[in-house]
Amino acid sequence: MLETSAIDIKEVISETLPTRAYAAQSSTSQLEPWNFERRALRPRDVLIEIRYCGVCHTDIHFLKNDLGFSVYPLVPGHEIVGIVTRIGDQVKKFGAGDIVGVGCLVESCRTCANCMEGEEQYCLNGAVYTYNGIEKETGNNTYGGYSDQIVVNEDFVLKVSDKLPLDKVAPLLCAGITTYSPLRRWNIGKNHRVAIIGLGGLGHMAIKFARSFGAEVTLLSTSPSKEQDALALGAHKFAVTTDEAEVQKLAGYFDFILDTISSQHDLNVYLGMLKTHGSLVYLGIDPAPSQIALVSMVFSGKNLAGSLIGGIAETQEMLDYCAEHNITSDVELIDIKDINQAYVRMVNKDVKYRFVIDMASL
Amino acid sequence: MLETSAIDIKEVISETLPTRAYAAQSSTSQLEPWNFERRALRPRDVLIEIRYCGVCHTDIHFLKNDLGFSVYPLVPGHEIVGIVTRIGDQVKKFGAGDIVGVGCLVESCRTCANCMEGEEQYCLNGAVYTYNGIEKETGNNTYGGYSDQIVVNEDFVLKVSDKLPLDKVAPLLCAGITTYSPLRRWNIGKNHRVAIIGLGGLGHMAIKFARSFGAEVTLLSTSPSKEQDALALGAHKFAVTTDEAEVQKLAGYFDFILDTISSQHDLNVYLGMLKTHGSLVYLGIDPAPSQIALVSMVFSGKNLAGSLIGGIAETQEMLDYCAEHNITSDVELIDIKDINQAYVRMVNKDVKYRFVIDMASL
Repeated sequence: MLETSAIDIKEVISETLPTRAYAAQSSTSQLEPWNFERRALRPRDVLIEIRYCGVCHTDIHFLKNDLGFSVYPLVPGHEIVGIVTRIGDQVKKFGAGDIVGVGCLVESCRTCANCMEGEEQYCLNGAVYTYNGIEKETGNNTYGGYSDQIVVNEDFVLKVSDKLPLDKVAPLLCAGITTYSPLRRWNIGKNHRVAIIGLGGLGHMAIKFARSFGAEVTLLSTSPSKEQDALALGAHKFAVTTDEAEVQKLAGYFDFILDTISSQHDLNVYLGMLKTHGSLVYLGIDPAPSQIALVSMVFSGKNLAGSLIGGIAETQEMLDYCAEHNITSDVELIDIKDINQAYVRMVNKDVKYRFVIDMASL
Repeated sequence: MLETSAIDIKEVISETLPTRAYAAQSSTSQLEPWNFERRALRPRDVLIEIRYCGVCHTDIHFLKNDLGFSVYPLVPGHEIVGIVTRIGDQVKKFGAGDIVGVGCLVESCRTCANCMEGEEQYCLNGAVYTYNGIEKETGNNTYGGYSDQIVVNEDFVLKVSDKLPLDKVAPLLCAGITTYSPLRRWNIGKNHRVAIIGLGGLGHMAIKFARSFGAEVTLLSTSPSKEQDALALGAHKFAVTTDEAEVQKLAGYFDFILDTISSQHDLNVYLGMLKTHGSLVYLGIDPAPSQIALVSMVFSGKNLAGSLIGGIAETQEMLDYCAEHNITSDVELIDIKDINQAYVRMVNKDVKYRFVIDMASL
């Protein structure tokens, strides 16, 4: 019985798909060419030829094993845009030639309270991340978008409008939804004063969304040099947070602050800039704990929250909103052979504002 | 001119009211009898003969100068219930013989955005606290309720029902409103699982309110001995937070957690017990910062907030709610000469659940 069963499984997964990628073989390795097999198409799977993949700071965290659970070989990439080339025989939403996207999630339990509410990113049984996850269908590791193709269940595939340049759409799948979701959850719009901390991949999208939703937007940065760019992207105001006088002027000013900084920093400075009952939403995944002056939060009635990407339905809503309002990411297109140099530049904050890999270069 | 002006002011405040109190003369002193003068009645002032004053942990923080801005002599006490004995000639809301309360606030700017919204506790120009504040009318320090009488502008005086025992009402003015306000702000009611951390003055009121609002209430404590009392007060469940297995069982369980612990403790354990999008509201005023694992808050979409007492209108609403639903504090009535011993017992968590000074003993 067991033997027969094993043969059946082997047959099902025997038509795996040879795939080319860039992978890191350890936490101290650079990314280098690597070949592996994508799973054979299940009935509801979609095979996507990847055209563009955005480069997220999280990719660096995982390559370096900053969170302590990286598995190697590691193929990063969760800002994927491509074209459907094959579909399983029960796929209903997509057909060959469709432009599609894949973000940070490729599967979840679909039955827990959070999944039932469309918040698969918080799946209580563990969402399957696009890379460094465990593929439910095979038990293998998941490998991300630094590759020429990917197989994803159609329920985790997003429709992408052909109205927008696809390279500039790719970062919406993570940087876009990660900033869009908390702005929507906190109902940010007219009559709100919003601060965005940091002008990187997330920060520049946060400016665009907050502005589009009608808020007064201030970009907070430690670099005075960011002012012109921030205003050009849509910020109404700019403040340098290393300037004590500017910080003082902003005490109690904002309704909402979105903190997009991925490295360690003092949140108390920013909490002080919130109005009573204002909220600071933190988006970073730095594992080190932060020192928070709770007594200040009490005396002025402040809120501090964390937020992780967004669910699949909300990601589709965000992509549709972007198509309707002509919102995309500002990107620098690179060849995949330059990915390691791009990481160095990202760490040095030398990118406006998202590297996107042109997968034709693979 | 200056000399004349000084004489005028002296005349206005010349009818001050000799008042007996207990005061600390320094951060290392015990409380001892001390006499001072209350300000003369202004047109909208009410003179209150104090019958009962609750003893709040904040009183100890201020006596010991834990927050660094205590001024001595210090007369603590902001859970005051008494009888109106005289009123200024423009007072409209009160008359002699009325039963009234005074909480943590005796004045605010009345013009800032927070005051205009009835949140005088967050007055942007600085609310005047009932003790250790600067009395607007005189520039003198404010002295609290460990005294035989107090003068307060009628707008900061609360009506107290004669249906309830007055000694048991006193703690509502701080412990009551401090727990009532966040439960109301977060709309806690049926279908919510609520945890209360700590079974002290605040904790026991929080159980009563959360239960009364229809929530499922769990008391979290480090002391297994608290279980029976917690259930008797209205908690549906009890869990010992030093028991790793119990903590594990509660992972992701609560919609809302009210943290009433006044001393240093690890909040991350409790944040882990919140559902996605759940909120932990911290009520302590320990000045030491806390280490918060923000990355955990991100991966599970958690909220952490501070909350300070409540506004005057909400305090009145709370008192009216208590009269209607027969909710009061469980108190241990003491003579004022025993106040220093009571502080020692409070630090040792040896009180069920609030000491209240019988001011007849002064």
